Amino acid sequence: MGPKGFHYATASAGIKAPRRKDMALIFSETEATIAGTFTTNAVKAAPVQTCLKKIKSGKARAIVVNSGNANACTGTQGTKDTRHIISLVSQQLGIPSSHTYMCSTGVIGTPLPMIKMVPAINKLTENLGNASLRNVAKAMMTTDTFPKTVSKKIRIGKKIGTISGVCKGAGMIAPHMATMLCFILTDIAIDQKTLNVLLRRSVEQSFNRITIDGDRSTNDTVLMMANGMIGNVPVKRTSPSFDSIQKTLNDLTDSLSRLIVTDAEGATKAVEILIRNSKNKSEAKAAGFAVANSLLVKTALYGKDPNWGRIMAALGYAGITFNPERTDIYFNAVKVVAGGISNHRDRLAAKALAAQKLKITIDLHRGSASALVLTSDISEQYIRINADYRT
Amino acid sequence: MGPKGFHYATASAGIKAPRRKDMALIFSETEATIAGTFTTNAVKAAPVQTCLKKIKSGKARAIVVNSGNANACTGTQGTKDTRHIISLVSQQLGIPSSHTYMCSTGVIGTPLPMIKMVPAINKLTENLGNASLRNVAKAMMTTDTFPKTVSKKIRIGKKIGTISGVCKGAGMIAPHMATMLCFILTDIAIDQKTLNVLLRRSVEQSFNRITIDGDRSTNDTVLMMANGMIGNVPVKRTSPSFDSIQKTLNDLTDSLSRLIVTDAEGATKAVEILIRNSKNKSEAKAAGFAVANSLLVKTALYGKDPNWGRIMAALGYAGITFNPERTDIYFNAVKVVAGGISNHRDRLAAKALAAQKLKITIDLHRGSASALVLTSDISEQYIRINADYRT
Repeated sequence: MGPKGFHYATASAGIKAPRRKDMALIFSETEATIAGTFTTNAVKAAPVQTCLKKIKSGKARAIVVNSGNANACTGTQGTKDTRHIISLVSQQLGIPSSHTYMCSTGVIGTPLPMIKMVPAINKLTENLGNASLRNVAKAMMTTDTFPKTVSKKIRIGKKIGTISGVCKGAGMIAPHMATMLCFILTDIAIDQKTLNVLLRRSVEQSFNRITIDGDRSTNDTVLMMANGMIGNVPVKRTSPSFDSIQKTLNDLTDSLSRLIVTDAEGATKAVEILIRNSKNKSEAKAAGFAVANSLLVKTALYGKDPNWGRIMAALGYAGITFNPERTDIYFNAVKVVAGGISNHRDRLAAKALAAQKLKITIDLHRGSASALVLTSDISEQYIRINADYRT
Repeated sequence: MGPKGFHYATASAGIKAPRRKDMALIFSETEATIAGTFTTNAVKAAPVQTCLKKIKSGKARAIVVNSGNANACTGTQGTKDTRHIISLVSQQLGIPSSHTYMCSTGVIGTPLPMIKMVPAINKLTENLGNASLRNVAKAMMTTDTFPKTVSKKIRIGKKIGTISGVCKGAGMIAPHMATMLCFILTDIAIDQKTLNVLLRRSVEQSFNRITIDGDRSTNDTVLMMANGMIGNVPVKRTSPSFDSIQKTLNDLTDSLSRLIVTDAEGATKAVEILIRNSKNKSEAKAAGFAVANSLLVKTALYGKDPNWGRIMAALGYAGITFNPERTDIYFNAVKVVAGGISNHRDRLAAKALAAQKLKITIDLHRGSASALVLTSDISEQYIRINADYRT
């Protein structure tokens, strides 16, 4: 069961393919607080620009989303189209326009096919309740191969609250928001400022720590709505339940971000890269992302080759301070590099590469900071998917 | 005809494959001045570390090179092996060890197979003169599909000098030196400090402006030897021929770097990315490299899809100051983006993508600086080559 007081609908507008569900609506019975984090790309899609203006109010009732078209690099027409859809949805739901948000994902540079989408909006508002959160996740998919939802229960005083999340994303995934949309809904009442803190912290340790191809998108958005339907006193920073909500939310976004990495375009493996004993946190992250984004590391992992030399090379251009001669590298529990040179365990490490999950631990012996980055390998299939994307 | 007074030899040590020529020797009849530029990777192979120590003397007679093994991440053994080979070569040639340089390229993390290489050194010194510069280029190849040599003639007063270059490289290619070795030889006498200036300038506008996969190697080296065999007065900064030598050298390194991009692992296209009217030079370079290194841009180019939205997205995360709404993008002469939005010329642009060469011009309308970056597309073949590299 999802959080109380949220209703869903999906519809087929035929944006990219006929019949496929490509629009969805999320609606809250009561006014919810809302917080959001958005792409750091300087080129922001029209719906992201619109969200950024609205989010300051901190109030929401509805989110409308489409896949198949990102409405990015579409100029003033893009903004007009976003506003028009928001206005139609709001009118039909009888709520203020300021309480409706829109998100888009798909091809960049083509205006939204409004002639197809406007009739689909009628279907969304007429059929509110005809879909589950899982159906919403399906309607958001682009190159994703499976829908991504996670739910968690949490005790708030004597009441039980629910936090549910849906997300999409399989390519153009890099730190600081990817080609990724994520909606998190809860029936717990949470004060708007507090919601903002909770969301930012959990995004930083989940969606901002995954990379598939190092490309950062124009559309990434995480929105979280809290509608208070369980009737608790709104949660604040000083509330006793704050820490447990943060922990539950962190678990939820961690699970969602791992689903994205598992579904990485054409990947055969989900890979955790743990940097240990780095000088500081930012160097640990830089080292993790340099290794995770190296095409040569990714292709070696795909080839089941524990080619740790490519990991050493990536660390070498990560811009961190370290001593190559003190560096150890492990594939799962197998130590392949000891003090910067071969530990003669490549055959044993090759066995670890046969599985669909792998953990690479890099110990820099330089300080006490650590960082975990999640990534995938890369196969011919990634090239095919992205070479054929628009055709 | 190559530059006077240089002699070459190649031999098969059987480092990676039997029979294939995998070692080469370059020898100058007379003492030459030498200058070098090296990888900026913090993880430097043993031969690079050794070169860095020697290069200060500015004097050289010989370069010995091997392919198939990079002698990187091999610890103190790697340094010992490099010194031992240098010492053997020098003894057999009857020159001081300080005048012999060594370079290696190939797999990282495995010690040099000295038992195979030592006998091959005898063959190299015994058979000096048995090979051409083109044979040297062949012996340096790893995943390269063709040998890379370029020669230029230049008038120095009443004499004719020759500058010849050989290089190798097809992957792990990124700015500031790639998995790339390059030797440039000339029979013009050039003062050592001047040689250093000439080389640095030409590398900055050639090898430092190409990228294939964004990975930077542990072994990249460019060495230039000037032996003065044409008998000119050594060229200095103030010499009348300085500018024409710089120009000729720039042309030569430009040609060699274009050969590397043409031979990019698994690529189907050589692509020039010209950033125009940027705020300043460093932003122009950053923008060019962000676009050139974007996997999504590369896969679109491979798919013959003028998906300029991915170029806009890459500019958006390049960390430059620009106004997306003022940006124009051209595929050859076809303007696909005007003021940040579609110019409805995608079909025409798709025709430009059918050829093996493409020029993408990005006009930021922000200032007056420009930069040219050379790159390639990426295909399934790149993945296969690099997944199977060690197996």
